[in-house]
Amino acid sequence: MTIVFADPAGLSHEQLEEGSAFSPRFDPSGLITVVTVEHGSNDVLMLAHMNAEALSLTLETGIAHYWSRSRGKLWKKGETSGELQQVVELRTDCDQDALVLVVKQTGRGAACHTGRKSCFYRTVQLVEGQAVLTDTLQPRLFDPNEVYGH
Amino acid sequence: MTIVFADPAGLSHEQLEEGSAFSPRFDPSGLITVVTVEHGSNDVLMLAHMNAEALSLTLETGIAHYWSRSRGKLWKKGETSGELQQVVELRTDCDQDALVLVVKQTGRGAACHTGRKSCFYRTVQLVEGQAVLTDTLQPRLFDPNEVYGH
Repeated sequence: MTIVFADPAGLSHEQLEEGSAFSPRFDPSGLITVVTVEHGSNDVLMLAHMNAEALSLTLETGIAHYWSRSRGKLWKKGETSGELQQVVELRTDCDQDALVLVVKQTGRGAACHTGRKSCFYRTVQLVEGQAVLTDTLQPRLFDPNEVYGH
Repeated sequence: MTIVFADPAGLSHEQLEEGSAFSPRFDPSGLITVVTVEHGSNDVLMLAHMNAEALSLTLETGIAHYWSRSRGKLWKKGETSGELQQVVELRTDCDQDALVLVVKQTGRGAACHTGRKSCFYRTVQLVEGQAVLTDTLQPRLFDPNEVYGH
């Protein structure tokens, strides 16, 4: 069963921002941006997208589902790696075009396909007018070659 | 001066994910998605977008600048409301198509135009098959009518 979400076009500005009807504003590609954070630490683990089906499945099963833009298909996070994400809370923003998904990261605790806990493992700094990256040295919790076989 | 960012098209998959060259992958509209979190608490304050100019200004001035998609212009966050964001850290993700901006929220501490600290002030829950929103009762730190005059 897919949940039928309220149509945001039918809502006033006030209803969208202050109301109790969940009316996700999917973009022209049918996607909404999702920030996934770790329960407890609030660390940002990853940024991804959901279509209506992924959002329905996430709400119905309590396990994070996304839409993979690179593969063009529904993506049950952790289906290959075993790193499933258990939903603790889902939040939406003022104009309902973004979501925050609070999860417990299962498996080895790696949300990133590189084997790290978070995808955000590098900082950006200006050094003599050039923007350079510095690795924050998050440990690899799995070997991606072993898990994904490439 | 606008920073010249490395062109991601010139990088291998390995360089993009493990290298030290910052090569933000702007989308076809020239934008990159930014998750802004509060320094210390890690609370997600808002989700927004930057073009190359906003990203340059953010790195150069240490004050968050975005691209307002609704207004179609550069947006120095807090220019009207006084709620400037001081940059503590900027991070990028594995494939460099998303950013996390860690900030100190100045002014009254409200990142959201509704006067709340965070834009994510409502949770989504399934109630009898319907997705409904519940207000988490974040206090309003300013009166939007007073600040924005509408």
